[in-house]
Amino acid sequence: MRINANYRNIKDSYLFSTIGQKVSAYTAAHPEADVIRLGIGDVTRPLSPAVVDAMAKAARELGTAEGFHGYIPSEQGYLFLREAIADYYARRGVTLSPDEIFISDGAKSDLGNLLDLFDADNTALIPDPVYPAYVDANVMAGRRVVYCDATVENGFLPLPDEGVHADLIYICSPNNPTGAVYGREGLQKWVDYALRHDAVLLFDAAYEAFIEDPSLPRSIYEVEGAERCAIEVCSFSKMAGFTGTRCGWTVVPEALEREGMNLNRMWMRRQSTKYNGTPYVIHRAAEAVFTEEGYRQCMESIAYYKQNARIMAGTLDQLGIFYTGGVNSPYIWLRCPGGLDSWTFFDRLLEQANVVGTPGEGFGANGEGFFRLTAFNTREKTAEAMQRFERLARSL
Amino acid sequence: MRINANYRNIKDSYLFSTIGQKVSAYTAAHPEADVIRLGIGDVTRPLSPAVVDAMAKAARELGTAEGFHGYIPSEQGYLFLREAIADYYARRGVTLSPDEIFISDGAKSDLGNLLDLFDADNTALIPDPVYPAYVDANVMAGRRVVYCDATVENGFLPLPDEGVHADLIYICSPNNPTGAVYGREGLQKWVDYALRHDAVLLFDAAYEAFIEDPSLPRSIYEVEGAERCAIEVCSFSKMAGFTGTRCGWTVVPEALEREGMNLNRMWMRRQSTKYNGTPYVIHRAAEAVFTEEGYRQCMESIAYYKQNARIMAGTLDQLGIFYTGGVNSPYIWLRCPGGLDSWTFFDRLLEQANVVGTPGEGFGANGEGFFRLTAFNTREKTAEAMQRFERLARSL
Repeated sequence: MRINANYRNIKDSYLFSTIGQKVSAYTAAHPEADVIRLGIGDVTRPLSPAVVDAMAKAARELGTAEGFHGYIPSEQGYLFLREAIADYYARRGVTLSPDEIFISDGAKSDLGNLLDLFDADNTALIPDPVYPAYVDANVMAGRRVVYCDATVENGFLPLPDEGVHADLIYICSPNNPTGAVYGREGLQKWVDYALRHDAVLLFDAAYEAFIEDPSLPRSIYEVEGAERCAIEVCSFSKMAGFTGTRCGWTVVPEALEREGMNLNRMWMRRQSTKYNGTPYVIHRAAEAVFTEEGYRQCMESIAYYKQNARIMAGTLDQLGIFYTGGVNSPYIWLRCPGGLDSWTFFDRLLEQANVVGTPGEGFGANGEGFFRLTAFNTREKTAEAMQRFERLARSL
Repeated sequence: MRINANYRNIKDSYLFSTIGQKVSAYTAAHPEADVIRLGIGDVTRPLSPAVVDAMAKAARELGTAEGFHGYIPSEQGYLFLREAIADYYARRGVTLSPDEIFISDGAKSDLGNLLDLFDADNTALIPDPVYPAYVDANVMAGRRVVYCDATVENGFLPLPDEGVHADLIYICSPNNPTGAVYGREGLQKWVDYALRHDAVLLFDAAYEAFIEDPSLPRSIYEVEGAERCAIEVCSFSKMAGFTGTRCGWTVVPEALEREGMNLNRMWMRRQSTKYNGTPYVIHRAAEAVFTEEGYRQCMESIAYYKQNARIMAGTLDQLGIFYTGGVNSPYIWLRCPGGLDSWTFFDRLLEQANVVGTPGEGFGANGEGFFRLTAFNTREKTAEAMQRFERLARSL
């Protein structure tokens, strides 16, 4: 018996557990403190009424002989939802067949499981700073990882370096953690690079619903040639508050082939062997997101979070602090005031302002000296937190 | 870019698609025929009222500011459900910590994803006939597969052969497709073999709720030493009709170590990297299965299916046809009447009796000459199907 020895090489991510411990220790010592959390990227607004109604109705259906649903007819997901998603793309001029869309329990599962399709002997190119699961999933398979630097100089939107070869490329736009969003030219450069290197681009579009600037692409398939090199992973988590409801989708174009194998067929084979579909009630809940009423309700929540982000950006503008994000994204990525390193600023913000954020260093070496705030708290708490932030920053 | 070339070696499983095509062709040519389906292992009875109420209530909760739930606090699942499952085991004398139980979207996902923990350079031992996904998931990773023969001679319950080495061992009891159930001695032999070979036993307990004979183990952990070699995968699919609702659990004991690595910790690391938890509403639905009312309602459905199985077994007894299963299992595995091969019998049963079953050959070479029927249709259709079966069998 040989275990997968690559697991010995995975670094334990202590980021959120360390944050949790620091916050617990502080609140235990200061039980009167009103701590405001702008740390974790989790939504807080309730599910929209249309979504709740659809989910509750579907649950009732399953309790009747006529309305009962057993196994999902295809592991790819019910056609009604795949058609609704294809229609969502069609509204911005992207034509997809429902056969190119795979419903899943969320972007994190798909981003990990998609790696099954590729040999361990490939090089993954990952931006730094980054969502840590991209790295861990590759290390678990023993794949080589190279990094590209996201820095102030490139606005945290790195472009390809022809001198570096990669087989798998991760792009997340709007980005977690930096909130930076690629324009069409930037994404075109990545697509062209992927095509030249025979690479596959894994495009994480989980935050696309936050884009309001119509000139910014919300899907990689708005870029020429992407259907021959890119897989897009998207999610209802941030778009419709589904972080605890779990639904996402992945697009694997029919035109995507490598070494004579069709990746759409390979992914279908992977999912039909190791997945059994997304729950019927969740399909119906997700379908309701695309009704006129459901979509309007979801966009109201997004507008609410974006107004929070504007409040946060306003404070940073007044203070003259460099940041990315906050406009087409629920995240703000800022340079720590006073030239502090990111953990020192974390401690000061917690202890002196009773506000919790995320130290940039936890997302990679290039995150040192930076800090992430999220727009997912209430309006009142966000405004209060930023007043405290401002007082602290002016004192540094 | 190298794709995972092992995908070239996966045989396409045409079993259920071939069956579908044959049935479609027959019904198109005979639109008046009243075809009864005893083929696919999918439940048909509605979800129990307690489960529906819990799921609908949880959906409503998510629509309120106070009741909203975001990310599942741990990818391992909510503690309330892990405690309910630990209690379910405790009722039959198996002590598990909730930390040993991982909630998932179903047994098929876990049975596939668990293989991430093991090197490709291992040998998997798989019974023939078998649920095809066990084989495919190993071929996808390039792992060696050896088979052990389940035959009439061993009652379709093969025992270990000391001359054969294996690193991963698959046991499904009650078995799909044969319905055969291991006694304590048989499972003890497998556990002892696994311990001697330093192997890990993957125990598929998806049908345990159908066991009525109190002398038969319903969990591998009823067998001595299993906590040092076995992972158990179980499901709400057949126990509570969750085939379209998607929930299961996997037990990875704290005591299970290989090559100095703790497999419970490894599985936690895998799930926290490539999974984001099971939906909150599904957790609440599953929790309701273990309430007094919910459990009684689920057991009523199982009793209904088992009464169907008794009707089927009664017909076979009258005809003197060899079979396994049907008592502690929803499946009956029978020798094809008239000495027919399994596809010929499939065609005759479809065309002459308008009944659909599954040819044993589709589950492996040892399935040739055998046939699977399932107990998941209605009482009336099951009784009618078996009358037609009897007329056909007497004519062969």
